[in-house]
Amino acid sequence: MTSEMNDSQRLRRDERDVANWSDECDVLIVGAGCAGICAAIEAAHAGAKVTLLERAGGAGGTSALSGGLLYLGGGTPIQKACGFDDTAEEMFKYMMAACGPEPDAQLIEPYCEGSLEHFDWLVARGVPFKPEFFAGAHEPFGSDEGLTFSGNEHVHPFNRIAKPAPRGHITQQVQNKGSLLMRQLVMAADAAGVATRVQSRCEALVLASDGRVSGAVVGTVDGEAHIRARGGVLLTAGGFIYNDAMLEQYAPVLKRCGYKVGTENDDGTGIRLGLAAGGEAIRMETGDISLALFPPNRLREGIFVNRFGQRYLNEDAYMGRAGEFSLLHQDGRAFLIVDDDSFERSGLFPIEVAGVGESIAELEAELGLAEGCLQDTVAFYNRHAERGEDPLFHKGAHYLKPIAKPPYGAIDLSTENALYSAFTLGGLRIDASARVLGSAGDPIPGLFAAGRTASGIAKQGYSSGMSLGDASFFGRRAGRAAAAAANG
Amino acid sequence: MTSEMNDSQRLRRDERDVANWSDECDVLIVGAGCAGICAAIEAAHAGAKVTLLERAGGAGGTSALSGGLLYLGGGTPIQKACGFDDTAEEMFKYMMAACGPEPDAQLIEPYCEGSLEHFDWLVARGVPFKPEFFAGAHEPFGSDEGLTFSGNEHVHPFNRIAKPAPRGHITQQVQNKGSLLMRQLVMAADAAGVATRVQSRCEALVLASDGRVSGAVVGTVDGEAHIRARGGVLLTAGGFIYNDAMLEQYAPVLKRCGYKVGTENDDGTGIRLGLAAGGEAIRMETGDISLALFPPNRLREGIFVNRFGQRYLNEDAYMGRAGEFSLLHQDGRAFLIVDDDSFERSGLFPIEVAGVGESIAELEAELGLAEGCLQDTVAFYNRHAERGEDPLFHKGAHYLKPIAKPPYGAIDLSTENALYSAFTLGGLRIDASARVLGSAGDPIPGLFAAGRTASGIAKQGYSSGMSLGDASFFGRRAGRAAAAAANG
Repeated sequence: MTSEMNDSQRLRRDERDVANWSDECDVLIVGAGCAGICAAIEAAHAGAKVTLLERAGGAGGTSALSGGLLYLGGGTPIQKACGFDDTAEEMFKYMMAACGPEPDAQLIEPYCEGSLEHFDWLVARGVPFKPEFFAGAHEPFGSDEGLTFSGNEHVHPFNRIAKPAPRGHITQQVQNKGSLLMRQLVMAADAAGVATRVQSRCEALVLASDGRVSGAVVGTVDGEAHIRARGGVLLTAGGFIYNDAMLEQYAPVLKRCGYKVGTENDDGTGIRLGLAAGGEAIRMETGDISLALFPPNRLREGIFVNRFGQRYLNEDAYMGRAGEFSLLHQDGRAFLIVDDDSFERSGLFPIEVAGVGESIAELEAELGLAEGCLQDTVAFYNRHAERGEDPLFHKGAHYLKPIAKPPYGAIDLSTENALYSAFTLGGLRIDASARVLGSAGDPIPGLFAAGRTASGIAKQGYSSGMSLGDASFFGRRAGRAAAAAANG
Repeated sequence: MTSEMNDSQRLRRDERDVANWSDECDVLIVGAGCAGICAAIEAAHAGAKVTLLERAGGAGGTSALSGGLLYLGGGTPIQKACGFDDTAEEMFKYMMAACGPEPDAQLIEPYCEGSLEHFDWLVARGVPFKPEFFAGAHEPFGSDEGLTFSGNEHVHPFNRIAKPAPRGHITQQVQNKGSLLMRQLVMAADAAGVATRVQSRCEALVLASDGRVSGAVVGTVDGEAHIRARGGVLLTAGGFIYNDAMLEQYAPVLKRCGYKVGTENDDGTGIRLGLAAGGEAIRMETGDISLALFPPNRLREGIFVNRFGQRYLNEDAYMGRAGEFSLLHQDGRAFLIVDDDSFERSGLFPIEVAGVGESIAELEAELGLAEGCLQDTVAFYNRHAERGEDPLFHKGAHYLKPIAKPPYGAIDLSTENALYSAFTLGGLRIDASARVLGSAGDPIPGLFAAGRTASGIAKQGYSSGMSLGDASFFGRRAGRAAAAAANG
């Protein structure tokens, strides 16, 4: 364990160098967030002896800090109770359009087809969803409705591609929704006989001479243990938003987001363990980039403009899409232009006013924009908005109103002054059974991954709930597959 | 070698499983393109016994098919002879601004500081550069001038960041410049005593128990050989533009470029060998994306507009920048709007006319753009161009002319109808000695990489000549470092 050793050595041990196993189990799981817990429940239900490792002092991970929102559909009881039709086919169409380029149909298809069963499974484990629709901006902060549009299903261009249905299913609790979600799942895991070891860190994977992952080296307060895993090891240890060096190497643009969604244990350890064992990490540049701005929804009557005074996105898009477009395509420098009617201060998010003017010309000058560019944009927008049209970006008609009542203002959407949040979406490449694949596309025997340690259903175009969604869904699959491997 | 084995096993062997070495050398180099040949020359000059493997029937690789252009500066004799001042500092400033985000100063700094010496070294190996400046569009097709602006040094915003100097140094020959470059280097390698084995493919790297790369398994027409490399193995086997599966996983957007710059051996083998040995592959999504459109330079009097009728880039930008902006930020859907004065058919590149009109309004309608958007854009542009200004994108004054002489036309810049070319820039992470780094940032002992197998000086914002530039520069460093390792 000298500093001379590289990751490939540090994080990988040859079984021939393991003198003896200190413990053994069927399924060894690294990380007790949503993916790990769901994997543990399923593996235990399949009769496997499960050991679940957690670095922190208790289970929960980043999932426990989340909004407890899962992306589910296909006609769940909650969707039906709220009066929305949905099918696995429409869900698939949306996801294939939203989660590209090169969305992974091999993950998305089973995810959509299995969504109803997955909903039932969660409910059976005590996760509550209130059959009430939240019509606000994407997420009910401070109330307990169970269903919301958590993506771009109902806005352009996706509303033309698939029949819109809300798919954000929210754990029922006014505050700390993610904490409730995880509490219920942890209780289910305990009841299923899962042995959870906290303050236990996976230090290396052990590989047999045929390349199979056969166990792990685990660091605990009592020293180092070598745990054999007959069915395999599951890496469910989160992403890498808290590892600056990895961000710099793989996803430098995410460093510009001021708010990191995660815990400090999202340091990429799971991904690096998988890499050392021969796994492939893909789409490592991708992340959820959310620009938190709405509510108040009235602000959507304003227009997003870039530093050339040009509009660039329908303002009713989901915050993940607004963040992605603003940071990736506009270099994180943009404004939301509002008038006296559409301006309303947010109670939730910080808002920095970049400029105010009695006319658009005055505002334009105050923002330092080239003379005439913003005036042209607003005149064009107003002319069409008066007719209830937005021929460029197709914002929903209820938000289309001329920007015409002075004073006019510009809310700063720069990465320096607006709230951009981020977590990583890149990770180990997995198949539909959550097996980790090597760079030739073949599975590493005995190695599984789920949650943000893996590249999952959202390679890009994140909608809220997709991360807990695929963590729980493919976590379960990983648990079943590893339990089956232990039996056979 | 069954299909059940994964890459990590296929491409990596434990030295304990190698019965005996069939051959040995000091430095084993995988791939005889520009990086590999330069590495071989330097290692041989340092007294090492060098074995150079090449899969194809002869040396040269993609480099031999290239334009023979190297990005060099700091005040080379050619720059001076053509009347341009340059310093390593200005070169560094440009590269740090152009090659981001997170440009790698640890590679760029030595590259700039060593550029004069590197120029001399190339000349001493018989690579000719004519001391004449080519003032055309970025690359002399069909003439033999030795110096050109091969990037964005002289256009906005880079001309405000660093003192512009042309740094594209072109091997002197009217046609097949890359072929001449490689011929001279191959002759130098032969003279230095390098043993080149063609039709020889590296099938796996051999790792000692301490993680050191100690040799390779080589497939030849005579069967499999195990070659020991006392100083190390150098991976200089090109990029992965010819591997569709890798593009899909790592850089899906590059698949939209119709023209792949490379040979079919740019299939990622070098990168995968390095990954299997514990190396880290970074910025795998990046590539050079060039939109070949100019010459004729007169077309630059037109304006780039996106599908919303908005301008998005100064039209005098280098084709690599135009391609990157058009594909990455405009979804590969855009037009070049010209009038009767600025239109000229290219003799070099395919041009598809998307629409023609007697007025901008007519052209706008023919292109299916929202009513008024293109008219606003052209009116704004013309109003400022009349004063010799481009307040939005700062195109050079000599290209600023109102678009005012009918008929008007739109050249299609969509990925379907314009010439987008691409090669990959992502690859193994190296340090300034071209040592391959593991994911913890520590070198893999005995493993080196250069050229497109590595992530080099251009993480993005490619300027012509940077690829042959860093291939030759860090190839040399790799050769020296491996030779030193063999001696000590």
